[in-house]
Amino acid sequence: MFQIPRGTRDFTPEEMEKRRYVEEVMRKTFQRYGYREIQTPIFETLELFTAKSGESIIEELYFFKDKSGRDLALRPELTAPAIRLYVDKLQMEPKPLKLFYFGNCFRYDRPQKGRYREFMQAGCELIGTDTSEAYAELIALAFIILKNVGLKDIKLYIGNLNVLSSLFKIFNITKEQQKKLTPLIDKSQFKEIDSYLKEFGFLEKDIENFIKSLQTSDAKEILELVEKDKQAENEMMKLNEILDLLKNVFDIKTCEIKMGIVRGLDYYKGLVFEIDAPVLGAEKQLCGGGAYELISLFKGKETPTSGFAIGFDRTILALEAEKYRFPAKKLDAFVIPVNEELTIKALEITNNLRKQGFSVDMDLLKRGMSKSLKYASSINVDKIIIVGKKELENDSVTIRNMNTGEQELVKIDDLHKKI
Amino acid sequence: MFQIPRGTRDFTPEEMEKRRYVEEVMRKTFQRYGYREIQTPIFETLELFTAKSGESIIEELYFFKDKSGRDLALRPELTAPAIRLYVDKLQMEPKPLKLFYFGNCFRYDRPQKGRYREFMQAGCELIGTDTSEAYAELIALAFIILKNVGLKDIKLYIGNLNVLSSLFKIFNITKEQQKKLTPLIDKSQFKEIDSYLKEFGFLEKDIENFIKSLQTSDAKEILELVEKDKQAENEMMKLNEILDLLKNVFDIKTCEIKMGIVRGLDYYKGLVFEIDAPVLGAEKQLCGGGAYELISLFKGKETPTSGFAIGFDRTILALEAEKYRFPAKKLDAFVIPVNEELTIKALEITNNLRKQGFSVDMDLLKRGMSKSLKYASSINVDKIIIVGKKELENDSVTIRNMNTGEQELVKIDDLHKKI
Repeated sequence: MFQIPRGTRDFTPEEMEKRRYVEEVMRKTFQRYGYREIQTPIFETLELFTAKSGESIIEELYFFKDKSGRDLALRPELTAPAIRLYVDKLQMEPKPLKLFYFGNCFRYDRPQKGRYREFMQAGCELIGTDTSEAYAELIALAFIILKNVGLKDIKLYIGNLNVLSSLFKIFNITKEQQKKLTPLIDKSQFKEIDSYLKEFGFLEKDIENFIKSLQTSDAKEILELVEKDKQAENEMMKLNEILDLLKNVFDIKTCEIKMGIVRGLDYYKGLVFEIDAPVLGAEKQLCGGGAYELISLFKGKETPTSGFAIGFDRTILALEAEKYRFPAKKLDAFVIPVNEELTIKALEITNNLRKQGFSVDMDLLKRGMSKSLKYASSINVDKIIIVGKKELENDSVTIRNMNTGEQELVKIDDLHKKI
Repeated sequence: MFQIPRGTRDFTPEEMEKRRYVEEVMRKTFQRYGYREIQTPIFETLELFTAKSGESIIEELYFFKDKSGRDLALRPELTAPAIRLYVDKLQMEPKPLKLFYFGNCFRYDRPQKGRYREFMQAGCELIGTDTSEAYAELIALAFIILKNVGLKDIKLYIGNLNVLSSLFKIFNITKEQQKKLTPLIDKSQFKEIDSYLKEFGFLEKDIENFIKSLQTSDAKEILELVEKDKQAENEMMKLNEILDLLKNVFDIKTCEIKMGIVRGLDYYKGLVFEIDAPVLGAEKQLCGGGAYELISLFKGKETPTSGFAIGFDRTILALEAEKYRFPAKKLDAFVIPVNEELTIKALEITNNLRKQGFSVDMDLLKRGMSKSLKYASSINVDKIIIVGKKELENDSVTIRNMNTGEQELVKIDDLHKKI
């Protein structure tokens, strides 16, 4: 037997029904917000990703040379390809430009729960605007997508990398120290941050204030800390404005300021946000996004850009963990001819119902009534249509409701009213 | 600027709208016929494809070693992965099992019109039945999918590889000669077949009869030729039965028998069929399928299998060549506040309409009335909602129909009735 490659997955019909349902709800929500879908290739030139994320990303990539010696890589994320497409083909479009996409991505990671080597992302880019209203709408969209797919308990956090930088500066934390602290901040490991800073001889009071600035959700406390840094103060005011819009206009109650959002400090600038599903425990982050600068790196004309990515697989895991009842996809009817002679007639009936838009199947194995009934009850079907000779003389067939067991004689021409 | 890899494509919003529309029509048609969707990884172990198609396929593959030295390949087609999934996870499901899928595939080909290195296929497998009714339904499904997406002129051909083998035997054409003839037969190059057979000293009359057997669509003529070969005669009778079902039950008029369908002679057995879109010229084949044996090769329990693959990209090309009018996706409304003070109110109106399921956008750049109107007319939108101070005092806004230019004052609570 051939094995599936490690870290990848097959999706059975049951799983695909869930996935397509969630994808469709997400797509419709993007479209309601004026976003339009794009798609890019599964692989790109390797340099597209090293230009964005540095050479170190190669470690995490599936890459290969094609037969002409070009270095190609399976895409690890979708923002770089989307911006490549934008610079190549959409720069002249009227702004703001709202683009969304679904796509499989690949990372050569150690597989674990909620982390696969092939995984799917849903995401979007908002190009050409940086007003508070635009940012609030972007963040609200991410939140509402996750609400619309059926998640009950999600938490939204918004932060700002420029304010975080300002905090580093105010507390005299060097670049070197920032590098060590970033992963600890990312994981909210405040004890470790405390001992790390103590090691370097920071004052107790400064350490306390710095950690408080990462923990507080009160904009005022942070404003007090950064008041000497005009730019940070302005960004903090804007962040507060965005928070107000999210709470009051977009009606999002579970939203907090959190300065400890780090993300990729390299190309994100200013606004950052995350959405968590606490039900997932350690791997709880469903969505990350913010404002970033990538267009000029890709030789396009600079314009404000922001966006987010949603982990599609984790969203499904979160729904399952919350015991969400996905809508069941059922066949509308299954047709059984009483004997082989009636096969053609049964096929005609089946076919006419399909033409009218119903999903209908019939016994293709010619295996007789009782086996067909057994098959029909093993699949997910609402109604059975039994085609018998006597009833046909009257242009009728028997309909059996599989939930109640009730049977009824129905004219063939009226079948569509009964299923 | 970074380049897109050769032979791959980006899809802009306009193109994606067409593609998602066609994909959705295809999906719904599969589901009406009782098929259920599956999905497999983008890459598989290299040996999955060499086992099925021989070592020579490596030439056409994107393959690479992962960091543990495993040989992996981007999938060139979807039948082998689907059957791997079936053997691995679905063998115990009740039969017949009807599976369909969409997926990108990769071939290291010379790019040309209608042939890309990354391309999309739609396809299905029917597992566990080989009745004429089942085969007729499978073939009809392929045809009806292509009709449902909007194609006007398509032609269906059905053949049988066992009958073709019998014809080879009857005319004493050796295996070696068959190998040379197969590509000529595939391309209907009858002159070349004629001179090739003459070269080998075949009798004029035999050559004529052999070529006639490839050209005729009359089952009787072929039946006469193979009458000494009982198995071939039976298969030919069954093919004729399938043809009758297609014409009479499934109402497909443009359907013909064609013995010159070759396909991959390796794992296809018996029934084969093709659907062409003549509008595409040389690259006209949209769909190919038939019965095949692959399950036992993959160490599963043998059971009849058949299926088909539709070239998704060529289907789009054929629709475009036939000047099919794809349904336009429009925003339902675009909201413009008359001045900056009204931005929040406009955002609230926008948001309420979105909650009611409308696709609505608003000016996020705060650039004033006339620029916003210009933007609105540059995008595809039906109605503009103008939010003005005076009208708001009356809980009303102005709606402008972008097609007729008509304006109307509407209560905010009644907006959903007007868009």
